[in-house]
Amino acid sequence: MWKELLPLGKAPGGGYRRFAWSGPDLECRAWFRQQAEARGLAYEVDGNGNQWAWAGDSGGQDALVTGSHLDSVPDGGAFDGPLGVISALAAYDELRARGTDFARPFAIVNFADEEGARFGLSCVGSRLLTGALTREGAHALRDADGVTLPQAMEAAGQDPQTLGPDAERLARIGAFVELHIEQGRALAETRHPVAVASAIWPHGRWRFDFRGEANHAGTTRLEDRRDPMLTYANTVLAARKKARLAGALATFGKVAVEPNGVNAVPSLVSGWLDSRAPDQETLAGVVAEIERAAGERGGRDGVAVEVTRESETPLVEFDHVLRDRLVALLGGEVPVLPTGAGHDAGILSASVPTAMLYVRNPTGVSHSPAEFAEEDDCAAGVGALADVLEGLLRR
Amino acid sequence: MWKELLPLGKAPGGGYRRFAWSGPDLECRAWFRQQAEARGLAYEVDGNGNQWAWAGDSGGQDALVTGSHLDSVPDGGAFDGPLGVISALAAYDELRARGTDFARPFAIVNFADEEGARFGLSCVGSRLLTGALTREGAHALRDADGVTLPQAMEAAGQDPQTLGPDAERLARIGAFVELHIEQGRALAETRHPVAVASAIWPHGRWRFDFRGEANHAGTTRLEDRRDPMLTYANTVLAARKKARLAGALATFGKVAVEPNGVNAVPSLVSGWLDSRAPDQETLAGVVAEIERAAGERGGRDGVAVEVTRESETPLVEFDHVLRDRLVALLGGEVPVLPTGAGHDAGILSASVPTAMLYVRNPTGVSHSPAEFAEEDDCAAGVGALADVLEGLLRR
Repeated sequence: MWKELLPLGKAPGGGYRRFAWSGPDLECRAWFRQQAEARGLAYEVDGNGNQWAWAGDSGGQDALVTGSHLDSVPDGGAFDGPLGVISALAAYDELRARGTDFARPFAIVNFADEEGARFGLSCVGSRLLTGALTREGAHALRDADGVTLPQAMEAAGQDPQTLGPDAERLARIGAFVELHIEQGRALAETRHPVAVASAIWPHGRWRFDFRGEANHAGTTRLEDRRDPMLTYANTVLAARKKARLAGALATFGKVAVEPNGVNAVPSLVSGWLDSRAPDQETLAGVVAEIERAAGERGGRDGVAVEVTRESETPLVEFDHVLRDRLVALLGGEVPVLPTGAGHDAGILSASVPTAMLYVRNPTGVSHSPAEFAEEDDCAAGVGALADVLEGLLRR
Repeated sequence: MWKELLPLGKAPGGGYRRFAWSGPDLECRAWFRQQAEARGLAYEVDGNGNQWAWAGDSGGQDALVTGSHLDSVPDGGAFDGPLGVISALAAYDELRARGTDFARPFAIVNFADEEGARFGLSCVGSRLLTGALTREGAHALRDADGVTLPQAMEAAGQDPQTLGPDAERLARIGAFVELHIEQGRALAETRHPVAVASAIWPHGRWRFDFRGEANHAGTTRLEDRRDPMLTYANTVLAARKKARLAGALATFGKVAVEPNGVNAVPSLVSGWLDSRAPDQETLAGVVAEIERAAGERGGRDGVAVEVTRESETPLVEFDHVLRDRLVALLGGEVPVLPTGAGHDAGILSASVPTAMLYVRNPTGVSHSPAEFAEEDDCAAGVGALADVLEGLLRR
């Protein structure tokens, strides 16, 4: 399966650019459909563009669902997302080989637009399914070229008329299990190839707009300038410091500058803050401190600072009963870890008993072509997922 | 004349985007040709895309040339460049009205690609004319989309085969005078609408590439990161401080980030430094100090810093004889000022006696839609240019 999927959306630098509803994403989606049909699974796309492959009654209640996503961040790695989909397909094959009785409806899902690389909001497909994103909210999403989500879906041959919460489908899901590559090094130094998730840190994205005054870089005296790049730079350093002191994470990974000319003092610098922390209070405190630092420096630079919260996801504590069941099904001796990364599983956990498995990543690198898992560890992940699913299919 | 030129290449924000060989630039060039032909001037384009309008013998020796450029920085103002071309045309009309004897060949020039907004190198047309830029150097220029200068010229209907130094044409120029809007506030508080240039500060552009490691912003511990955004931010602040202490200018106005994703620690941040100083030694010292600060911080961040000098222009002292002649022709009581901005006049001054006139700018703002000159001051500029040209035509 990897062999067919690996070339899709691969950029010259070795990273993946599988942005939602773009050509490479559509190729990945065609691959998913092919995999479903090759196994005789009932293939369908829901009203929000999520792809489903059903074994047994697709209209039945209390379905067991597993899967992940196939889209990527810009220049992302091969594993983030696809490992969960491929492992789901491989675990299904394993269950068939074991002669497992599919006593409840079972589906493999590929959620649309998990990374949010194109429209700026993550987990769009699962948010719509659960109602965490409204139809109106989805219609307002635009990519950098001004293309709306409905326009992008339509261009990709997916009817956007049906976008919106899907309570009926959601009510039929009895449990969701997502397998994902680990995005840190917690397992790297242990003998465990697989872990069970405990929680997802609360996290969010804030856009900081620093507005100064465009001017000629060669003629404007330093004291006459209102240079927003200075305020931005100071805020980047302040964010790191505040996060370090609070035991949180804060990152400015995306910037846009106007006019972005070598010999022009910028009129506007926009920087996107990604911040995460073990609890909501710490997160709110860190972001407030970064805002305060930006405002103070802006006052000295003659630069106005405006902060817009683009998304915020509260702390996710995965269902304790399901989590403990997974640990038991895996023999009891398995690490239980929190993560700072958001997932479709985090969105679903608000509505459905949800669990996650992590597969060891020796470098801990993620969202980069250097993201990696050993073949043996991937096989252990498939085995663990098959064991878990087999147990859950038994109820 | 303004009325026809003003709408060309105007962006929704009110600024101009007249990038070399783009549609708006071609419209401006068509306008120049029209103006030349309407006056019965002999129109020609040289092998480097510079436009000429000749009164008298276009092949004669010791020609008097005036003019400027029509291209713009991203979201530039209406005056930087066009004021010099329009004033040249208006001064020519004035000289005709005065019945001036054109005793030597006379031309108005529109130099191609002065701002360097598209291909990253300023004064491409005048550099090629004088040989400061070679044919090979011109062929190596690429815009952000990978389009080379020859390809852009060809697409615009200009033969790129003839690109290169033009010693024969250069040898026929006896003197060059460029009128330009002032790009600072030196005249703003005085009773003088017009000044004569003394010198152009040495200046240059350096690209700082900060290479770290792409990673997931939500899962990578701060201490495991090699985040080039931190090194960049620290360098921006260091540049401002070093420039202030040295009485120089230093600006980071352009940035490019890879992968530029909200939830990804960048792998690469490239920042362009524009720096200028009253003398070469100060400039070299400031840039060296900024490099040192970047390297030191990079060492702490695990980020490699590479600095590439993209262009550097030495101190320009305008011809003293010509400068004093301009002051005398303007009645003796006129400010004589240096500037930090590069101009085609600065390039030509290495080969030809060259002078500049500045027209007062009440805000001092430049490279921005807020760039401005009063109508009376523009008229005073035309009058001053006509007086200067009339005197120089007399020899």
